[in-house]
Amino acid sequence: MKLAIVGTGFIGCSFARTAADHGLFAEVVGLDKHRARARKALDLGLVDAAVDRVPDDAAAVLLAPPSDQVASWVCDLADHPGVVFDVASVKQPIVKAVRHRLKSLPPRYVPSHPVCGSERSGPEEAEIDLFHDQTVILTPEPETDASATGVVQVMWRAVGAHVRTMTVEEHDRILAVTSHLPHLLSFAYMNGVEPSMLSLAGGGFRDFTRIAASSPTLWEQIFRLNKAPLMAALKACRHEIRELETAIRRDDTEAVRTLLESAANRRREFDGA
Amino acid sequence: MKLAIVGTGFIGCSFARTAADHGLFAEVVGLDKHRARARKALDLGLVDAAVDRVPDDAAAVLLAPPSDQVASWVCDLADHPGVVFDVASVKQPIVKAVRHRLKSLPPRYVPSHPVCGSERSGPEEAEIDLFHDQTVILTPEPETDASATGVVQVMWRAVGAHVRTMTVEEHDRILAVTSHLPHLLSFAYMNGVEPSMLSLAGGGFRDFTRIAASSPTLWEQIFRLNKAPLMAALKACRHEIRELETAIRRDDTEAVRTLLESAANRRREFDGA
Repeated sequence: MKLAIVGTGFIGCSFARTAADHGLFAEVVGLDKHRARARKALDLGLVDAAVDRVPDDAAAVLLAPPSDQVASWVCDLADHPGVVFDVASVKQPIVKAVRHRLKSLPPRYVPSHPVCGSERSGPEEAEIDLFHDQTVILTPEPETDASATGVVQVMWRAVGAHVRTMTVEEHDRILAVTSHLPHLLSFAYMNGVEPSMLSLAGGGFRDFTRIAASSPTLWEQIFRLNKAPLMAALKACRHEIRELETAIRRDDTEAVRTLLESAANRRREFDGA
Repeated sequence: MKLAIVGTGFIGCSFARTAADHGLFAEVVGLDKHRARARKALDLGLVDAAVDRVPDDAAAVLLAPPSDQVASWVCDLADHPGVVFDVASVKQPIVKAVRHRLKSLPPRYVPSHPVCGSERSGPEEAEIDLFHDQTVILTPEPETDASATGVVQVMWRAVGAHVRTMTVEEHDRILAVTSHLPHLLSFAYMNGVEPSMLSLAGGGFRDFTRIAASSPTLWEQIFRLNKAPLMAALKACRHEIRELETAIRRDDTEAVRTLLESAANRRREFDGA
């Protein structure tokens, strides 16, 4: 069994390393548009070989390049005999772009997304068991082969993840709220902080802004690809901000406390979840 | 040397515990409006006695009650012979309220603020060395006795903190940006997240919203007390959000990337700071 990783960055290499550690594949090969990064992954022992093309005998191909290159790879691998799955943070634009070019999705392509991004990047950051106890969302479409979905499910479970299935629309709408909007807010907020203030910022600031150190290239793509759901989420959030602001401006102690309590309760629900 | 702690919550008890551990005081006594909490601090061995009033022979009095009770305590202790210092997240409203009642600040009251809040609360959460390597801001006013400021400085340094001095106005303006606004945004954002989405949220979400689990009572007070600087910070942040939103709506890849890069660079500056 051979696994091919397209994009030997943080997520791709974390999967490679974990899969090797769990003995899921006899061989893992890596491919990257930036050949130095594939070599780096090889030097670090994360892949067994750095290759220039996806080998035909790969049983599985993990697509972990920048999000806006996934659709093109799915099309290029339409006739590949292995299962093809990705890790992109957006799903509908990929599915649309592939359908636009090929009319329908390749049946052995299973859209997937592990919900465990990080502000880290690069093979040197690869983390074993990154996916342990994390959620992976699969968004198979009508064209998707059920057995391919099954194989991808098994692989994610084998590296310790919980698998959830939903539609691409649902995925993109939810991720806009739970992931993309916090990034947008954190980036925007950070731009308003004067450098001289940084030495006076504490632990709350550190956590709130951790994601503002994420890759600008990667996030520019996600914002662009998931624009409509993200703008809808921002609109709803602006309404929540306005509501809290109004209560504060009016010195409406009860209203402010009620809003903060509902937020704190929901956050505690998350910790309990 | 006796230390009195007014408000035996998370911060008060963390100071008590750390001060005891460093041998700064021979005895620490605790007082709390909620007598059960003072007893809890006693049971946990964080204070040597739970008292009903601040003893006259306390060399130092740490005021760590809810922010909106600090001014009243400063007034009540105006003639206390020890140094009196607080930990409130806002400074100008306290100084104003005290001056309003007493005409001028008691010379042995030193406004202070350790920048290491937490979403945790209560004596059972008290943490030894909470202040180690953290910043404490002192905002002495013209009335403040320089030797009292010196004593307070030495105490904070003794528990491992870095001490910075600035005006109350500067403190409140900066903290509105670095602490109060992230809390406002995190609370408001959290209110827009549907409960069903929680199980799909990842690490970015967890960190971004950690502060939304903070005490609603405490934060309602901070927002109320620091309203004007907070509203100014929100206005500026809204401008940053709008700028990023506009660039995303226009598919202006270059503008989006530039905004994200400046945010990411500033965040990395913070890590390096």
